[in-house]
Amino acid sequence: MSTTFTPEDRTAPAGGHEAGGNVTLINSFVVDPGRDEDFHAAWYETSRYFIAQPGFVSLRLHRAVNDDAPHRWVNVAVWESEAAFRAAHMTQEFRRLVSQDKWQAYPSTPVLFEVVTAEGEAS
Amino acid sequence: MSTTFTPEDRTAPAGGHEAGGNVTLINSFVVDPGRDEDFHAAWYETSRYFIAQPGFVSLRLHRAVNDDAPHRWVNVAVWESEAAFRAAHMTQEFRRLVSQDKWQAYPSTPVLFEVVTAEGEAS
Repeated sequence: MSTTFTPEDRTAPAGGHEAGGNVTLINSFVVDPGRDEDFHAAWYETSRYFIAQPGFVSLRLHRAVNDDAPHRWVNVAVWESEAAFRAAHMTQEFRRLVSQDKWQAYPSTPVLFEVVTAEGEAS
Repeated sequence: MSTTFTPEDRTAPAGGHEAGGNVTLINSFVVDPGRDEDFHAAWYETSRYFIAQPGFVSLRLHRAVNDDAPHRWVNVAVWESEAAFRAAHMTQEFRRLVSQDKWQAYPSTPVLFEVVTAEGEAS
């Protein structure tokens, strides 16, 4: 494969200033429908690392109902602060996990967000 | 403007079968940083319609921390069922709202998902 995804490619870019309160990672993955099981296993292993890190709040891994969606799998993860989120992406263990060959099959677009408007109890 | 976004463009495509339990809409918007305020006003008006519909559970409107994100605004909305979600997108009022000229400035990619893995309390 000519493209190699680095740990930096797997980390949401920073903005002009660090967000203060809770932040939300929305990470969209391109996964061939025939590889769903392998993707989920790789993602699950990595998620065990993240949920054990300081400042982790929650995650929801979603799969699209339609197979032709541009990104069929999307992870929405909440962290207590951007600082905690960044710290979890700067460890040797993070680099080891996402540098594994099996991850090369799944391009991803990690973007960090702040919540602007909220209605209802999240479930 | 040569492209016109129809109400159908504003509705997440269906899959091969209707999802049973809760579903999550992840709707990504392209918004020029200079139009954030106008976008939020248009989105907010439309969101008042959705939160009053049967089966609406919650929503979180997110703005990216970095201005060069591919989609700077993303709405994550939970519905009790795909049937309720579809019904809310088949009314005259929905069509009227998203057919307004002001919406033409904001391309969107609405995709419907099911949650596969969840950790922690959503906030």
